[in-house]
Amino acid sequence: MEKIKVGVVGATGYAGAEICRLLYAHPMAELAAISSVSFEGMALSDVYPAYREVCDLVCETQADVVEKSDVIFAALPHGLSQELAAECDAKNKAFIDLGADFRLESEEEYKTWYGGTFTDKSLHQKAVYGLPELFREQIKTTKIVANPGCYTTAVPLALVPALEMGYIEQVGIIADCKSGVTGAGRKPAQNSHFPELNEGLSAYKVASHRHTPEIEQTLSRITGKKACITFVPHLLPVNRGILATCYARLKDGVTEEMLRAAYEARYNHEPFVRFLPKGKSADIHNIKYTNFCDVSIFVDSRTGTFIAISAIDNMVKGAAGQAIQNMNILFGLSEATGLMQVPPAF
Amino acid sequence: MEKIKVGVVGATGYAGAEICRLLYAHPMAELAAISSVSFEGMALSDVYPAYREVCDLVCETQADVVEKSDVIFAALPHGLSQELAAECDAKNKAFIDLGADFRLESEEEYKTWYGGTFTDKSLHQKAVYGLPELFREQIKTTKIVANPGCYTTAVPLALVPALEMGYIEQVGIIADCKSGVTGAGRKPAQNSHFPELNEGLSAYKVASHRHTPEIEQTLSRITGKKACITFVPHLLPVNRGILATCYARLKDGVTEEMLRAAYEARYNHEPFVRFLPKGKSADIHNIKYTNFCDVSIFVDSRTGTFIAISAIDNMVKGAAGQAIQNMNILFGLSEATGLMQVPPAF
Amino acid sequence: MEKIKVGVVGATGYAGAEICRLLYAHPMAELAAISSVSFEGMALSDVYPAYREVCDLVCETQADVVEKSDVIFAALPHGLSQELAAECDAKNKAFIDLGADFRLESEEEYKTWYGGTFTDKSLHQKAVYGLPELFREQIKTTKIVANPGCYTTAVPLALVPALEMGYIEQVGIIADCKSGVTGAGRKPAQNSHFPELNEGLSAYKVASHRHTPEIEQTLSRITGKKACITFVPHLLPVNRGILATCYARLKDGVTEEMLRAAYEARYNHEPFVRFLPKGKSADIHNIKYTNFCDVSIFVDSRTGTFIAISAIDNMVKGAAGQAIQNMNILFGLSEATGLMQVPPAF
Amino acid sequence: MEKIKVGVVGATGYAGAEICRLLYAHPMAELAAISSVSFEGMALSDVYPAYREVCDLVCETQADVVEKSDVIFAALPHGLSQELAAECDAKNKAFIDLGADFRLESEEEYKTWYGGTFTDKSLHQKAVYGLPELFREQIKTTKIVANPGCYTTAVPLALVPALEMGYIEQVGIIADCKSGVTGAGRKPAQNSHFPELNEGLSAYKVASHRHTPEIEQTLSRITGKKACITFVPHLLPVNRGILATCYARLKDGVTEEMLRAAYEARYNHEPFVRFLPKGKSADIHNIKYTNFCDVSIFVDSRTGTFIAISAIDNMVKGAAGQAIQNMNILFGLSEATGLMQVPPAF
Repeated sequence: MEKIKVGVVGATGYAGAEICRLLYAHPMAELAAISSVSFEGMALSDVYPAYREVCDLVCETQADVVEKSDVIFAALPHGLSQELAAECDAKNKAFIDLGADFRLESEEEYKTWYGGTFTDKSLHQKAVYGLPELFREQIKTTKIVANPGCYTTAVPLALVPALEMGYIEQVGIIADCKSGVTGAGRKPAQNSHFPELNEGLSAYKVASHRHTPEIEQTLSRITGKKACITFVPHLLPVNRGILATCYARLKDGVTEEMLRAAYEARYNHEPFVRFLPKGKSADIHNIKYTNFCDVSIFVDSRTGTFIAISAIDNMVKGAAGQAIQNMNILFGLSEATGLMQVPPAF
Repeated sequence: MEKIKVGVVGATGYAGAEICRLLYAHPMAELAAISSVSFEGMALSDVYPAYREVCDLVCETQADVVEKSDVIFAALPHGLSQELAAECDAKNKAFIDLGADFRLESEEEYKTWYGGTFTDKSLHQKAVYGLPELFREQIKTTKIVANPGCYTTAVPLALVPALEMGYIEQVGIIADCKSGVTGAGRKPAQNSHFPELNEGLSAYKVASHRHTPEIEQTLSRITGKKACITFVPHLLPVNRGILATCYARLKDGVTEEMLRAAYEARYNHEPFVRFLPKGKSADIHNIKYTNFCDVSIFVDSRTGTFIAISAIDNMVKGAAGQAIQNMNILFGLSEATGLMQVPPAF
Repeated sequence: MEKIKVGVVGATGYAGAEICRLLYAHPMAELAAISSVSFEGMALSDVYPAYREVCDLVCETQADVVEKSDVIFAALPHGLSQELAAECDAKNKAFIDLGADFRLESEEEYKTWYGGTFTDKSLHQKAVYGLPELFREQIKTTKIVANPGCYTTAVPLALVPALEMGYIEQVGIIADCKSGVTGAGRKPAQNSHFPELNEGLSAYKVASHRHTPEIEQTLSRITGKKACITFVPHLLPVNRGILATCYARLKDGVTEEMLRAAYEARYNHEPFVRFLPKGKSADIHNIKYTNFCDVSIFVDSRTGTFIAISAIDNMVKGAAGQAIQNMNILFGLSEATGLMQVPPAF
Repeated sequence: MEKIKVGVVGATGYAGAEICRLLYAHPMAELAAISSVSFEGMALSDVYPAYREVCDLVCETQADVVEKSDVIFAALPHGLSQELAAECDAKNKAFIDLGADFRLESEEEYKTWYGGTFTDKSLHQKAVYGLPELFREQIKTTKIVANPGCYTTAVPLALVPALEMGYIEQVGIIADCKSGVTGAGRKPAQNSHFPELNEGLSAYKVASHRHTPEIEQTLSRITGKKACITFVPHLLPVNRGILATCYARLKDGVTEEMLRAAYEARYNHEPFVRFLPKGKSADIHNIKYTNFCDVSIFVDSRTGTFIAISAIDNMVKGAAGQAIQNMNILFGLSEATGLMQVPPAF
């Protein structure tokens, strides 16, 4: 079988570069072309010296990328993907968007949180939200995938089994999330300047982060009822990883055993979700550089509170890895192809 | 005026050593004697080379410390302070305990969470819980101070004004806390071994940490009603600092303005609590090495949730600094004496 | 072709666990059995939760490992490998030792630096020092490989071309090395306790580290003259990586261009050595988690000093990766099989 | 006695802000006015929220600062101090320059390394190089102090006693230095962007750093002979601290005992230099946030090499602390006034 030809638009940002890195290990796909507005004509390894000799592709134009590829990954600032999606759609090429343009079903919410409009509604109808653990059947049917954001992967995966079984109240859910700094991208800023982030920790965009409506949309789809959560992200002085500590009220009569059984059943066959044994807590240390999502649950019987904690690498399962997982689905490959690795333990 | 003679029992642990460090800057107190079971006969600067030439005291016996001091700080493993308190009481010396022996009013809870008993109940009746922002008048009347733990300082200070004014529900409070690793002490362990903590983050003792009953005791005292919270601590890969992100349901009709006014009024004259301007979030970066507690509040009007975030240095306001603050109260000094410093910004 | 059956003795230490992790990506080898004295009967993923579901092998006895494997990797404390080597030799199994027992040719130096003796001199005669860039032809002829230490890989690779060409003085070489803390192993200690290493940096074992004679042995083999270096290691607050900054006096008439040409020629076909362009300096950030050795050189014409800086991941090219590279040589595979990856750039 | 009125020009950069922080603890000086081109009209605590309520001064114009102060500290980009020095000189105000404008005696070297000229040579004749351990008598006689850079403090203090006694060769000295990232200042850049510095280490400006001529000037003054060193700085993923590992050839007949005696004698009465006991190595962990310089020495008798390792906090002894030490000298105070603190040990 011929290898899938992959193009990456926006390859010099963190998410784009991570796709290139991960694809190197993929046996059925090859990086055919990359583009970058800022670094056109330069090699990716000029921007990231780590890539020297193993990933030396030169940045071409976006048009070149579309031309040379079977599937185009877009890692662009929000708002720039819609036009590219249209072009790929016209040429019948698969399109996987790592930005937010196709994630929200409601144009109104998109306008509220991102300030943009849906330029071609038919594209949005074709697009499928690419969280494979929930929507893999739909993903198989599309050529436009809206790859979820990082928090929006970690929080739902922590809660899915409990919500599906109706074991927790949907009202009053709190997601206290902590993210490594790569989530903020490659561009230097004061709050990611080493001396000012190192040895620090703070919340940011408290109850006002753009991932809020996207998480709520996913939780609503699970239960069929409009969800509303309190979401507070924190910026960690580590490179990678998201830890999502989620709190919900337990419904009467629900026991820890019922919950553990639900999680085990739900995630038993998922290649990338690891449900941890009783008493163990997810740690971002254990999933770094891989596509795994570790999930752990606890019951605080003193207060009737359910606590679900998940950990993902924001750049892999929260971005580039999940995008490749979606590509595998689109092209009929086993979902884990090229993505199964042992996380470094130290 | 003669300087207060200070003794530190357990001086080679992190809390004890931090007391010694901070006292060096105190104009009205001097370190008279220190002890350490593990390092008797050795200089403190042999254990901590950072202290060389500025804090070279040699560890003596506990009896020596009591003999030579006006006030004894005990930084001992839980369970070892009661006997020492009795001795200080008999000799009419002030006693400030950084351990948990005198923190809980209820012997039953002490038994449940620490496995010990109250060996002399009269001492427990004399002891006052040393959170100055709440109990400074009582502290003035005692010679035995139970210095609060780190989480048990950060969480109440985040919530006091809202609880005192009755602006939030007391039921359903969640405290998602993140702590630097010095809180776990000086003894090396697998989970504080550099390569296994660095670049990681996980929760621990989920809904089962010993500080839970102590926090609840303080919240109950504020409102006069039995409080019950969900408390989840996380271990951060930083040396110092606690960030407490607390969630509570807003009562009907309470606005952000009412809350901000309450916090401003309550903390306006507190020397060590800094209530942050609207939109700013507490960051452990901003309080390191000092006795400050930064407090920030937010309202999630979409879900009716109140969010209060506080930051302290777990070794200073969460241990040694607060202990010295209590000493200042006991000895009639201005509370901030020797403790007011500009936190390093980088 | 059937896969090579690999056994790892001492699998729960950092080097052993890293071999297991890397082998997962090897297409021609499979982990057949592992052993650990401390964790016999436990799964490797019980010790390293990061390995859950991808590397769950249970620790057996050393005898089991030998029995089930074609090649045995030993990651044992120094002194314990000789007996195991004898056993493998008797059973005609390949043996790759990550410890120091077979690294030094001179029993006297072994005695001086490690305090042991050569129990069976014939084994030592069979053993080959496994630095492939220098000794790959000899490695092909043996079944006992003495895998080099971390510093002892980084320093020679920085200097080989200059020494081979006789461009620098062999007397007066200085190697100022900086290592991540995984080099000190899994066992917690005071100097690797997070709060005491974090935000620190110091030299250790100044001019007295055990890798000194091993580096000198390699440099002597290159030039045929007894080498003597000053070697000062430093402990870095990072998990992985060694940066070796080496200083030597330039011989008269040698220019930077001559040196650059020598390095380019020497390393052009080495799969794992990347000689950096003029002006670029090696950074441990760029080789982490991979088997690459980045080498950069500079000339200080003001002082006639040659400066060569190399970077490796101490756990990969400095231990487990190089061991697998040696296995590939022993078994006639392409040297890079299963080891070629793109280093993460962030 | 009235307090010294201190002005800081360039107060919002790291060095300027650190002066403000340290002055808060000074009993004989008070911050009278600050200026900042970028943040004029804003409070220092708006730029550094850590300073809230303890250092809320508002940035005024440079002219205001000169007007209101007895001594002006300038923390300006290189090249901007000369005019300000002239103004202070005209008004007979003390001037302490943390930039490089007055550090080099030779205008030619200044031109070579900084690209500027000496606009008023008489000012340069008045200026004294402010390394108190070497030049305190001259400092007492001036009103213009050229405060040394960070590397240029650490390297000489490591070598002074050995050079003064003539125990080491002046030719062939190597200074392998490692610096925390605050040395690069407040402005975000790609190489100080958290994800790209964290877990990394590399050399920079190899044998071409601007501090080279300044170090050589100081070493030349010590011995009276033109010195020439090889200087290689490295960028560490820590906030603060410089470790300088210096190598020199021992002269014949010089023993470790002779060297230790020389260092002890030379530094015995220096308030801020701590000469460490035999076998102990300087660690940046032990001097952070203080004005101490720890010095340790070793002899590699195998190669006849002297190794001297010093550690300073680049922002304190390497910048702001040393500037205040110089102010104390200028104003006839005890040198340690307001600067003596116990370094945090964790």
